[in-house]
Amino acid sequence: MIHTATARAHANIAFIKYWGNRDEELRLPENSSLSMNLDGLYTETTVIWNDAQKENSLVLNNQPQLGQALERVVKHLDNLRKYVPSLPNYANVISTNNFPMGAGIASSASSFAALTLASISAANITLSERTLSTLARLGSGSASRSIPTGFVEWHRGDDHESSYAETIASPDYWDLVDIIVVVSDSHKKVGSTEGHQSARTSDLQEGRLKHVDNRLKICKEALLNRDFESFSEVIEEDSNLMHSVMMTSRPPLFYWQPASVAIMQQVKQWRQDGLRVCYTLDAGPNVHCICVRKDVPEVIKQLKTLSAILDIRVASAGSGAYIVQSDEVNSQ
Amino acid sequence: MIHTATARAHANIAFIKYWGNRDEELRLPENSSLSMNLDGLYTETTVIWNDAQKENSLVLNNQPQLGQALERVVKHLDNLRKYVPSLPNYANVISTNNFPMGAGIASSASSFAALTLASISAANITLSERTLSTLARLGSGSASRSIPTGFVEWHRGDDHESSYAETIASPDYWDLVDIIVVVSDSHKKVGSTEGHQSARTSDLQEGRLKHVDNRLKICKEALLNRDFESFSEVIEEDSNLMHSVMMTSRPPLFYWQPASVAIMQQVKQWRQDGLRVCYTLDAGPNVHCICVRKDVPEVIKQLKTLSAILDIRVASAGSGAYIVQSDEVNSQ
Repeated sequence: MIHTATARAHANIAFIKYWGNRDEELRLPENSSLSMNLDGLYTETTVIWNDAQKENSLVLNNQPQLGQALERVVKHLDNLRKYVPSLPNYANVISTNNFPMGAGIASSASSFAALTLASISAANITLSERTLSTLARLGSGSASRSIPTGFVEWHRGDDHESSYAETIASPDYWDLVDIIVVVSDSHKKVGSTEGHQSARTSDLQEGRLKHVDNRLKICKEALLNRDFESFSEVIEEDSNLMHSVMMTSRPPLFYWQPASVAIMQQVKQWRQDGLRVCYTLDAGPNVHCICVRKDVPEVIKQLKTLSAILDIRVASAGSGAYIVQSDEVNSQ
Repeated sequence: MIHTATARAHANIAFIKYWGNRDEELRLPENSSLSMNLDGLYTETTVIWNDAQKENSLVLNNQPQLGQALERVVKHLDNLRKYVPSLPNYANVISTNNFPMGAGIASSASSFAALTLASISAANITLSERTLSTLARLGSGSASRSIPTGFVEWHRGDDHESSYAETIASPDYWDLVDIIVVVSDSHKKVGSTEGHQSARTSDLQEGRLKHVDNRLKICKEALLNRDFESFSEVIEEDSNLMHSVMMTSRPPLFYWQPASVAIMQQVKQWRQDGLRVCYTLDAGPNVHCICVRKDVPEVIKQLKTLSAILDIRVASAGSGAYIVQSDEVNSQ
């Protein structure tokens, strides 16, 4: 019997950032974080469990993968099996991002969320959203946040079971939009896994963590009150705190490009001039400009006056991970 | 009797930065700092004490000044009189910078160093360099560092008397050069006095201060050993730490411009490629590229390939503050 399932999970943008782990192996984060799933930007992953074969395979965006990419997937399947021992031993994994790699959108969150859900479903097992979120976290910390729908809080927790994400508001609660301004399409030199490990080498990580619970509280309240002004201030501060830690790590991680700085400064100026928009940057140079839906045309109009912009993508709040298809196929 | 003296003091560039005060009134800094005086970039100030008049005057770069600029000078003269009660009551102050305002070089250090020395000398008083440094500090913290010659350490100290700067190496000890890359000539929106007061509003200031004594020790040793590699790493880290504090203060102080970031990233790339150059930025967008004299032509050649550069100035290590002229004039 061959078991197969296809799952879809969205990318997410963090408003209160995750940077640094207390436990690298379990990816238990130093702090709780808060994010929005990004509608229309997803990974679709099919897992075919088949113990008639004696090795795993991975096809990513139509390209068969060996080496590091395959190893990371196999490691995740092995991790899943620790918690769900009934999982079969060998899988074929076929995964596609509907957004280009290097489009300024991290793909590890959506990839490991989709892989987790597809792997469990293909084995005909049903787990709670909370458990799925803890399992996705083992592959990529931020993948835990791509399991629940809409606006999501990832509780840092004390151990594997208590470190999971859950919905704090549905996608339609507030019509926030992420306008992703792509200023570089080159693949980042230092991946996030390595980056998280370097967070503690910065003298500033402790200071970033000191009031992060308070920032998360302010951000959550601003979100629930649809208070754009408070929301803007706290997410920009939190983004700047994370990049400060990055730039003062050893070696320094400098994700900001000149164009990133130009856009950040313009966004602040536009907001002073009355346009309700704010920014946040993940571990990359692309700027996520956040505003409500009705302000999207004006923000895009303003952005188009700037140089050095390669592409602009727009995403509203998206759903959680879900099954697209699930089958049992009799092997031939 | 009219007493007059003219003093000259150089601007300086900090390698280990001063940011934030323990005592705003006395300008006792949170941490010790280390700098190099900048040869050829100076303020020349004449003080004419004349108690026949009943008010003070200030002429700055040939423009008579009223308002804030005059007030700050009068406040400094009042401060000097607290420690040197024999100073007369009224002065005419004539001050000229030989570098343009807004050339990316802070003028408060050289201005208050020159004003202090000229005020004391015009009253026919001789004070030790250490005492002059403490007095200059009252006008502008970094002015304490423009009193001694060459490479200078400002000891944070515990009180007025113990917070002074002294020479750690003469100007010819190491042929370091500051290549000042001017990317903006607009006057900064937030002055340093106000900025120092905001340092404590950043969650990162504590982390910046945690190992600053160690960074100063490393920087001083690198300087004394003419070890460019250690020197580069520690001054770039220290500059990034200060700007991290600035960018996460409330409200955030964003001195970096897109061109500042472009130059910082290029400098790191050039150093990886074997060119011995590093960067530091004061509270402004202009980038100070530091190298030894023989590498100046190559650094300038590389800089000229970049866009958005308004001007380039070159300064080697300069002397301390000194008297240009001192007279007693019989009043008519």
